[in-house]
Amino acid sequence: MDNPHSPFRIPHSGEPLFRRMAVVGVGLIGGSLALAARKAGLVETVVGVETDPVHREMALATGVVDRVTGVLAEGLARAELAVLAVPVNEIVGLLPEVARQVNGACLVTDVGSVKGPILAAGDAAFPDGRFVAGHPIAGRERSGPAAARPDLFDQANWIATPSARTDAGAVERISALWRGVGASVVRMEAAWHDEVLATVSHLPHLVAYALMDAVLGMERGEERLKFSAGGLRDFTRVAASHPRMWRDIFLMNREQILRVLAAYRESLAGLEAAIRDRDDDTLIARLARARAAREEIPHRP
Amino acid sequence: MDNPHSPFRIPHSGEPLFRRMAVVGVGLIGGSLALAARKAGLVETVVGVETDPVHREMALATGVVDRVTGVLAEGLARAELAVLAVPVNEIVGLLPEVARQVNGACLVTDVGSVKGPILAAGDAAFPDGRFVAGHPIAGRERSGPAAARPDLFDQANWIATPSARTDAGAVERISALWRGVGASVVRMEAAWHDEVLATVSHLPHLVAYALMDAVLGMERGEERLKFSAGGLRDFTRVAASHPRMWRDIFLMNREQILRVLAAYRESLAGLEAAIRDRDDDTLIARLARARAAREEIPHRP
Repeated sequence: MDNPHSPFRIPHSGEPLFRRMAVVGVGLIGGSLALAARKAGLVETVVGVETDPVHREMALATGVVDRVTGVLAEGLARAELAVLAVPVNEIVGLLPEVARQVNGACLVTDVGSVKGPILAAGDAAFPDGRFVAGHPIAGRERSGPAAARPDLFDQANWIATPSARTDAGAVERISALWRGVGASVVRMEAAWHDEVLATVSHLPHLVAYALMDAVLGMERGEERLKFSAGGLRDFTRVAASHPRMWRDIFLMNREQILRVLAAYRESLAGLEAAIRDRDDDTLIARLARARAAREEIPHRP
Repeated sequence: MDNPHSPFRIPHSGEPLFRRMAVVGVGLIGGSLALAARKAGLVETVVGVETDPVHREMALATGVVDRVTGVLAEGLARAELAVLAVPVNEIVGLLPEVARQVNGACLVTDVGSVKGPILAAGDAAFPDGRFVAGHPIAGRERSGPAAARPDLFDQANWIATPSARTDAGAVERISALWRGVGASVVRMEAAWHDEVLATVSHLPHLVAYALMDAVLGMERGEERLKFSAGGLRDFTRVAASHPRMWRDIFLMNREQILRVLAAYRESLAGLEAAIRDRDDDTLIARLARARAAREEIPHRP
């Protein structure tokens, strides 16, 4: 869209990017975006939409939002941006409802960690292309508005997965928001995003959950856990994440997860065979390669 | 031994526990014990025995040891305690040699993370029972004397796995050393120790190595790694550990590792089946149980 008065365009400098931002789901991610965007002067007012009354109260008390409501239509009124920050399957269900209740000038984005089904639902709900599917790669094991931090996205990647339908101006304006809270903007095909996230996030979570599940199933399992060294503690930090949220992710990104899981099972079987066969050379080669790969992972300060 | 003049007994207060401690292998664990024991006044002099000339120089330069030598006999001369802090399979090979070269009043202990084969070799080498098999549960991904820290064992567990042959006074005196550097002393059967460590340390390392191996084997594997969130980074910290050291541990604790690995494979298959079958209830129940178990793991400050 080349109309200079389009709501999809970035405003002139000195003005906030969005006067009113509605954050639907004031948890860790939604709450942190609210804090960061206001701190950076990117938004004037943040309205939270939150079904959990305890989280509503917490979000107000900790200053994460200016106003909070349990009613979607109320939260979306006069918003220039709606950020859907609820669990992935709720986002899919919410999109048609948001489309019915939002004003015509409002951009819509989400923060879900599975993009394919959300992009399809968003494109269907917003045929004019103002839904921008996105995913900030950031998280903590704690959840809820009390865990929100304004620096959560500092040096994180925000991945945009626009479709052919997505409005280019809308992508630019929402990219400016994420850049403004410290994130690097990356574009990807939704399918590749889902494959990458299955690899670097969903599979590690599954593996951590499986490890804890296995230990608990063993004789004197809880006693074993008492002797965990740093390794298992670090390793299973991710298993402290919210079970319902992860169940939803596992089911929504089912095909990709099953595919990378098959590759992982094969690697594990290779290492198991090398141990069983006392195959020194294979074992050392695989461990050395894995160690070298670990060094490829970028480190945030 | 009830002889009050036995070298196996704890000296009177005011005196160091051991005048001269020989640390064979001045790496992360040996170096940290040297720093901590001297800082606490538990030893007067620390002599390092180290085959790697770079580590010898580093250990001297950073003040980890008072003296350092590449010759075992030289390092053991006049030692009252010899701590074997080399990789597990080297400990087994070293024990008969230490027995030949050490003086009659010297206690001997090790820090290996597999105890069964080491205890057997130690009992054979020291029929008088002055070898105390032990394992401080502490570590970092970095290795070598430059990574040594005097607080490494603070609030860690030191597990002693004495046999029926092990001298009770020797166990007490070496326990006092570990208590003095901040560790809690725990006694276990060697076989149970090896099973517990296979569960909480060796299996997590294997799983982390397998995960990195799997990602590397995938199409555009290194590109995927660039989008690792905190989860994978924490998770695979352990995969940065030393490949040769871990190969030795995997092979020495082979039976126990294969056993816990089988239990883990079963848990993973259960989660995989629940995802494949879109079995919501099983999935949520298993994830919630795993999360609860994670909260059992003790946290060090």
